[in-house]
Amino acid sequence: MSDQRLQQQIAFALEIDRLKTVLRRTAITDRSRQENSAEHSWHVAMMALLLAEYAPPGLDVGRVVRMLLVHDLVEIDAGDTFCYDADAVAGQAAREAQAAARLFALLPADQAAELRALWDEFEARQTPEARFARALDCLQAVLLNVNTGGHSWRRHGVSRRQVRERVQLIADGAPALWPLVEGWIEDAAAKGWIGP
Amino acid sequence: MSDQRLQQQIAFALEIDRLKTVLRRTAITDRSRQENSAEHSWHVAMMALLLAEYAPPGLDVGRVVRMLLVHDLVEIDAGDTFCYDADAVAGQAAREAQAAARLFALLPADQAAELRALWDEFEARQTPEARFARALDCLQAVLLNVNTGGHSWRRHGVSRRQVRERVQLIADGAPALWPLVEGWIEDAAAKGWIGP
Repeated sequence: MSDQRLQQQIAFALEIDRLKTVLRRTAITDRSRQENSAEHSWHVAMMALLLAEYAPPGLDVGRVVRMLLVHDLVEIDAGDTFCYDADAVAGQAAREAQAAARLFALLPADQAAELRALWDEFEARQTPEARFARALDCLQAVLLNVNTGGHSWRRHGVSRRQVRERVQLIADGAPALWPLVEGWIEDAAAKGWIGP
Repeated sequence: MSDQRLQQQIAFALEIDRLKTVLRRTAITDRSRQENSAEHSWHVAMMALLLAEYAPPGLDVGRVVRMLLVHDLVEIDAGDTFCYDADAVAGQAAREAQAAARLFALLPADQAAELRALWDEFEARQTPEARFARALDCLQAVLLNVNTGGHSWRRHGVSRRQVRERVQLIADGAPALWPLVEGWIEDAAAKGWIGP
């Protein structure tokens, strides 16, 4: 193992510490502050372990976990994009592609390709693993919202229609979890946490 | 899949959100605040992916990642124990065992046993996977310390002897990474970040 290789890996390990400073719109459950993207990534990776049995049969859970660990790294440069902000979403792909190009290039080429492939797979949402990972990413945000009085929904005036469109990611990638989520959303609508 | 089973899993997913409020002694690299145990768990799981090639041959990296995702859950009840605080370390095992008993019991029995087994394995440090995971847990703290001017070492007056004793975990579980760490510690000592 060359010393330069290890130095690159350590430099990358240090660089990704910055994901802890990227804030999301969701609040953590005690409502004391916004969630950051590093702790969110841990939470959703844990949910992959907890909810693996609801994934389509034959799915590689280890790959789901790895995908979820790396899925938000690009936010170090690109920032978190609020999924209900249409203007921000319009430039998201270009911002994140640029971020991926810079960040993964810090690693030795083989490892850069490996992590980049995980991120590309997550983004493309073609494989069952990517679709399940994306469903959990969405589910985690809904879980925090319904347990913080609809914190980010209310703050940003999100409508029931917008939420229902968004959570199609869950119906698509984790259909077994859909009835649960549908119940949460109807309940949130009844409580007035999301607009009509 | 019974509804009750899923409700237990979701209740657990919600409960573990609290790990985001458990603060460690280490600072994140921009030195703006202390690190919390949820984002630390993500960081060290990422380091397992990045540094897997330095593990003893034949090791199950997926198991290392799962172990690192769950290794600090008990801190939700037991708090983070600073490894250089002898008084706190004395009561740590009892506090954490009590925490594990309460927390994992929130889950369906089969899953409680599975996560508990991962945590027990990490703590016992007998398998190559547990020893490598523990080495990375220690390495991550050292990495943050040497990149924040020895933040927690200086703040708590930690000596070179204490650090060298502690990092035996790295020499033991990830010997290939030991020369790197040894260099960092000698450098930190030369800079006066750790006492004699």
